[in-house]
Amino acid sequence: MKIKNISLAHGNGGSESKELVEGLFYSVFGNKILNKSEDAALIENGKLAFTTDSFTVNPLSFAGGDIGKLAICGTCNDLAVMGAKPKYLSIAFMIEEGFSFDELKSIIKSMHDELEKNDAIIVCGDTKVVPKGNVDKLFINTTGIGEIYYSGISASNLKEGMSILISRDIGAHGAVVFAAREGMELSTELKSDCASLYPQVKSIVDGGVNIVAMRDATRGGIAAVLNEWANASGITIEIDESKISISQEVQGICELLGFEATALANEGTFVLAVPSEDAQKALAILRQTHESSAIIGSVNSTYKGKVVLKSSWGTQRFLDLPTGELLPRIC
Amino acid sequence: MKIKNISLAHGNGGSESKELVEGLFYSVFGNKILNKSEDAALIENGKLAFTTDSFTVNPLSFAGGDIGKLAICGTCNDLAVMGAKPKYLSIAFMIEEGFSFDELKSIIKSMHDELEKNDAIIVCGDTKVVPKGNVDKLFINTTGIGEIYYSGISASNLKEGMSILISRDIGAHGAVVFAAREGMELSTELKSDCASLYPQVKSIVDGGVNIVAMRDATRGGIAAVLNEWANASGITIEIDESKISISQEVQGICELLGFEATALANEGTFVLAVPSEDAQKALAILRQTHESSAIIGSVNSTYKGKVVLKSSWGTQRFLDLPTGELLPRIC
Repeated sequence: MKIKNISLAHGNGGSESKELVEGLFYSVFGNKILNKSEDAALIENGKLAFTTDSFTVNPLSFAGGDIGKLAICGTCNDLAVMGAKPKYLSIAFMIEEGFSFDELKSIIKSMHDELEKNDAIIVCGDTKVVPKGNVDKLFINTTGIGEIYYSGISASNLKEGMSILISRDIGAHGAVVFAAREGMELSTELKSDCASLYPQVKSIVDGGVNIVAMRDATRGGIAAVLNEWANASGITIEIDESKISISQEVQGICELLGFEATALANEGTFVLAVPSEDAQKALAILRQTHESSAIIGSVNSTYKGKVVLKSSWGTQRFLDLPTGELLPRIC
Repeated sequence: MKIKNISLAHGNGGSESKELVEGLFYSVFGNKILNKSEDAALIENGKLAFTTDSFTVNPLSFAGGDIGKLAICGTCNDLAVMGAKPKYLSIAFMIEEGFSFDELKSIIKSMHDELEKNDAIIVCGDTKVVPKGNVDKLFINTTGIGEIYYSGISASNLKEGMSILISRDIGAHGAVVFAAREGMELSTELKSDCASLYPQVKSIVDGGVNIVAMRDATRGGIAAVLNEWANASGITIEIDESKISISQEVQGICELLGFEATALANEGTFVLAVPSEDAQKALAILRQTHESSAIIGSVNSTYKGKVVLKSSWGTQRFLDLPTGELLPRIC
């Protein structure tokens, strides 16, 4: 189908995003584009990883973080889950005329604090100020370079029998941003999961776990990650729905939204594939950070390229790549 | 003075930009920021250069280019003038809901063609789509990594007696974008100077010229570059105004604007500092591309940190760092 205009769905991190990236970017850039299936590209003979992300989240602050924290976590996490130590970042601000200096300062302080956690530094930057109404308050792009210290992590390496783990309960970031945007008074302590993953990933590597695939489940949620893996590796991922931890607050907001928690964005939650013999060791390390981490499923070959969700009632259904508008400006 | 709100002037590439960068970014990031005076940062023991730029130009197309061409030239040129071969780029699109697919495709084609000229590739990307009214049509961030093949280029290396050259006539990009925005019917052939500089810089290096400093004169024009150099090196740059080539069309638009051509943005024009004995050799190479290139001045120590403009009448005045709003969304 010929696309006439770009819609919000083209930025959902799911099915329509894929259509745009494959149908337009890959086709026009042709041989000028490298590395089509991972979050961060490997360059310089696999020694460095390189990744970019723009942040347009609305509102700029939310329970558990702000756009500054998010902009550092987002890019550093894309490096961390490739087995790279985040090292150098660029920061580019696109600011609406009239934006508060104090708010900008507070956002930059958040960035500073999050850089500390990654032991990364800013090496270059850019600031554009555009007339009122040309951008909504503030967008930030961060692009990062990391040094690979654990190689071979790839979406296309999954094989039958391997185990799938998740680092914590899902959907907190998506639920919190939605609630903040709609002015919902959350009577709870629910916070975005927004966090830097490098320290946790490092502890898994240091613990001697063989990592096959690893991905932070941002836009499109764990549904997007699992589908990309099933597709890239040509295998089936079978998930035991009851093993996925979802907080009551997130579940409640999902019911209001009419969304599946599996499609909600996370900003400090990752999915991990390991050989089955390493699953318990990996879980024990994940539990040191989040009690809600779990082994949620395994790899087989019943429906190649598909993700199967098994309910505790014994029924099963496909978990598809998310489609539609989801939540724009979630990150 | 305490800044309360960010103004358009903070994005001018001149005096207020400097105030924001030094007063806010450098002060809050502290030791988390590296490399404070060049356009591209040197990383990995000086083997690689890293630079970022966001593009918000309005209108998206103009005589001589579009935002896609600009986004590749801008970032590749920042690498090229540091003596680096542009190698890997990231691209991030921030798109307004409803943007035309065909227009996006045409912009991406421009990017592809300009990548060819730099023999560079895209290694990672990001696409955000935001609701109508949250961004004006399209912003693009490109971040690039280049491989240093000529080292030692720096804003702080200028010394007395050195020569200052410019690669062509100035101000075309600023003048063309202004004219397009105001709906002025240009009855001329005036085009933006938007171009990839890597091939031309390479020919200077291959020609055996000793390059001391080199910078593309984007936002803030040649006035910004010359002032940064005078300041970083603690010397005086004396420019012979009559040697700077300005086309009649640009001069005419400057008179309408009330601007100095020296403060107008360029996107394919660079300033070069070389030892005086290399000046004629450098000029001969520059002239192979643009007849309007010239030796425009030299370095002395009469007013340290200042740029002096000598008119053909024998008078002289300081050429200051541009201030005020200049043209927002010029790049």
